[in-house]
This record gives sequence, structure tokens and C-alpha cells, in this order.
Amino acid sequence: MNTHVLPIIGYHNSPLSQKFGVPRQPNLVAVKSHIRFVVPYGTPDAFVGIERYSHLWILWQFHHNKEQANFRPQVRPPRLGGNDKIGVFATRSMYRPSGVGLSVVGLDRVEVVDNQVILHITGADMVDGTPILDIKPYLPYVDGVNGATGFDKPTGRNVVFNDKAHDEFDVLIKSGLLTTDDKALIGELIAQDPRPAYRQSEIGVVCAMRYGAVDVDFMMNEWGVMVVSGVRVI
Amino acid sequence: MNTHVLPIIGYHNSPLSQKFGVPRQPNLVAVKSHIRFVVPYGTPDAFVGIERYSHLWILWQFHHNKEQANFRPQVRPPRLGGNDKIGVFATRSMYRPSGVGLSVVGLDRVEVVDNQVILHITGADMVDGTPILDIKPYLPYVDGVNGATGFDKPTGRNVVFNDKAHDEFDVLIKSGLLTTDDKALIGELIAQDPRPAYRQSEIGVVCAMRYGAVDVDFMMNEWGVMVVSGVRVI
Repeated sequence: MNTHVLPIIGYHNSPLSQKFGVPRQPNLVAVKSHIRFVVPYGTPDAFVGIERYSHLWILWQFHHNKEQANFRPQVRPPRLGGNDKIGVFATRSMYRPSGVGLSVVGLDRVEVVDNQVILHITGADMVDGTPILDIKPYLPYVDGVNGATGFDKPTGRNVVFNDKAHDEFDVLIKSGLLTTDDKALIGELIAQDPRPAYRQSEIGVVCAMRYGAVDVDFMMNEWGVMVVSGVRVI
Repeated sequence: MNTHVLPIIGYHNSPLSQKFGVPRQPNLVAVKSHIRFVVPYGTPDAFVGIERYSHLWILWQFHHNKEQANFRPQVRPPRLGGNDKIGVFATRSMYRPSGVGLSVVGLDRVEVVDNQVILHITGADMVDGTPILDIKPYLPYVDGVNGATGFDKPTGRNVVFNDKAHDEFDVLIKSGLLTTDDKALIGELIAQDPRPAYRQSEIGVVCAMRYGAVDVDFMMNEWGVMVVSGVRVI
């Protein structure tokens, strides 16, 4: 079999250290994260001119996947409720021959530390530790296709923090472990419903999402999602 | 060095058999081409549902590049006249560590021959023979970023066929080697000015672009580009 080999040029750092909670597509939630490059790819020379662009493409590795012994031509995407099968090339599923993810993210700023670039980005749908394969500028006149058709944006769920959760987040914010921005972002992440498709109709069952050093408990009730707890991870 | 290995899942077939003439970005010229997959990736099952999308992402290999012994952090992109250097990660240059190209193309239709898929596409900026690494649907609500900033679309050059070229194309069209659509497309390809950046100010110098079995000669004069000849390749 013919293959193509890419070097891993860097790694993604994010408060989302577990797959659970990571948005299913980029740019749905303005999570802030950054990419640290490995030598020699992080040299500032390689990024000259990148500030002209507001957005970047990230090519990355689905490194949490197990190796597949054989090609599996179909997957069950969450948007179809996890029941219907569809062709892998008709999805952005992580279970694909290339094992490569493609995400458009916002470019926040380029930081240089010890002559190595740290790229600060917004809206990544990649877990902490994700290996990075390439960075390309987003070219609006090429990549933004007028009149392209496909699926619409999923509507977010209604999210409310209950009194206990409010109090616990106040403690976490006062202790400096979270900011009020983090709290708002956690609400937006939960609004995307990180639960696997087969669990998305469950009522009254508590799920836990880790954000930085905090575990957030939430559950679905009849009208939306209630955040019931936010506690420091010991 | 950590690496990621991808299988080559198919190959691109196009009338543009040489790099010269291939548009510098996808979707600038509606060239029709197709991708033939290799076993097992071309099974129809793997494409079920793909017709819901008008556009696709193609990940492909810059297979004409020579291997680079060392990482070169900067390139000289054609849009800067080939003189100014810029960081490789601020460009879509083919000379990059990943060696991976990313193109959005139109999906024309899915053909099945001998139980293997042939994907007919429009607007590819890939040469004939390009190895294909992945196919993903274009998701308008994710990939079409509102308000993204970067460079504007380059304006095409004014193209005119002279009398000799008109006559020669008439012969090629009557012989069935080209269609009138092909002739119009050849004009659009030349309007993109396929000449390397350092030659784009040349006046009165003839260049040759191959399209299918035809060599097309053109040259720049004071007001635009003149197509001077279209002849069958022996």
C-alpha cells in the first residue's frame, strides 16, 4: 500500500483534557487554546505574515483513535442519532483512513517564547495534547464557498446553572481557578450537548465534563440542561 | 521525530497533465476532473450520503515536490511576485513539512464502475496523477467563516484568441479532441496567468500549456494575453 508520511509539528494545549466536552465542530464555542511547536517548526521565521489572516486551518491527528486493522467504510454519526450508518467520506468522523482532522479556528495572536512560536487560537475542536500536522491560512475568497449546501448548524440546548452550581462556581472564581469567562464558556460547551448520541434523550442522569482543573456535573431535564455542580479536581 | 502515516486512497485524473496551467487555488476555474479510488477505499458503501453536499474537501499529496532534507521556514509566494519571503505557515505553498494540499471542489456526481466509485468533481487545482489522502464533506455552517479576512481574489487577465488560434481550435473541436467548453475553459485557465511569478511581466514571449492532448501557445502583450495556437500533441 502506498502511503504518505507527515511530521508532527506541534501539540495542542487546551483546558479540555478529555474528549467529553470538546465541541463536535470548530468555531461553535470560542474556547481559547494554543499550539506549541516542536523544533525546528516553531521558528518565528515560519510564521512571518500570518497576522494578515483572521482564521487558520489546522490539520491534526485523531490520536485517541485505536488503529483499525481493516478499512471500515461506514460510520454512525451523532447527528443521525448514532443509529443510521453513512459513508465515511460523507462525514467528518474521526474514524477514517487518514486519521486527519481539519478545523478552521480563529487566530488570536502569535507569541514567541525562547525563540519558539506559540500560536494562540480560538474555537478549536481538538482535545488537549492533539498532535498538529499543518497550519494553513484561511483564504476567504477560496474557502468560503457561496451557496454551498449541506447540513445546517445544530441548535444549542438551553443551559441553566442551579443555585448550588452558582455557589460552587463563585468559589472556583474567587480561588482563581476559573474566570467568569470560563464559566460562560462552560455553559456554551454544555449547550452543544457533549453526550454521545445514544444518551442524548436521557433525563435526570448526571454527566461530568472536565474543564481545566474543574469537574462540571450537568443533567438534562424536560426543558433543557441544568448545571448542578462545579468542583475542583483533587 | 514523531510522524503520522496516511494511506493513499485514490488518484486524480485531469486534462491538466503538467503543473503549468493548473490554477493556483481551487474553484477559480471550473475544470472538470475525477478521482479513482483504490481498493478497498472505493467501495460505494463509503460514499453513501455524499450527494447531500454540493462541495467537498480534498486532502492530497504534493507528489511533484522533491523531498526536502531540511525544514525551510520561508517561501516566495507568486502573489508577492516571487521576490518577498514569507513564513511557510502563512501560505498555502506546496513546499511545506506536511506535503499536504487542501482544496475545496464542487461535487458533480458519483459514478460506480465495477463496484468502485469514481468521484466527478469541478474546480480542482491538482495535476493529473495527484495522490488523494482524504475526502470530507464541506460543511457550510462550519467552513464558511463570516467576516474572515485575508487576501482578495486576484483579478484575471483579459484573454483573446487570435485568428490562427481560432482556426486551429475549430479543427481540434471538429476532430472531437476538444469541445467548445474546453476552449472556453482554456481561456479561463490562461486568464489566471499560469506563468511563474518572475515571468509574469514578460511581453511577447510564447508559453505553452498542455490541456488533454492539446498544446496551447499564448503570450502576453500590452493589454492582456493573446492565445496564438492550439495544436494536437503528437
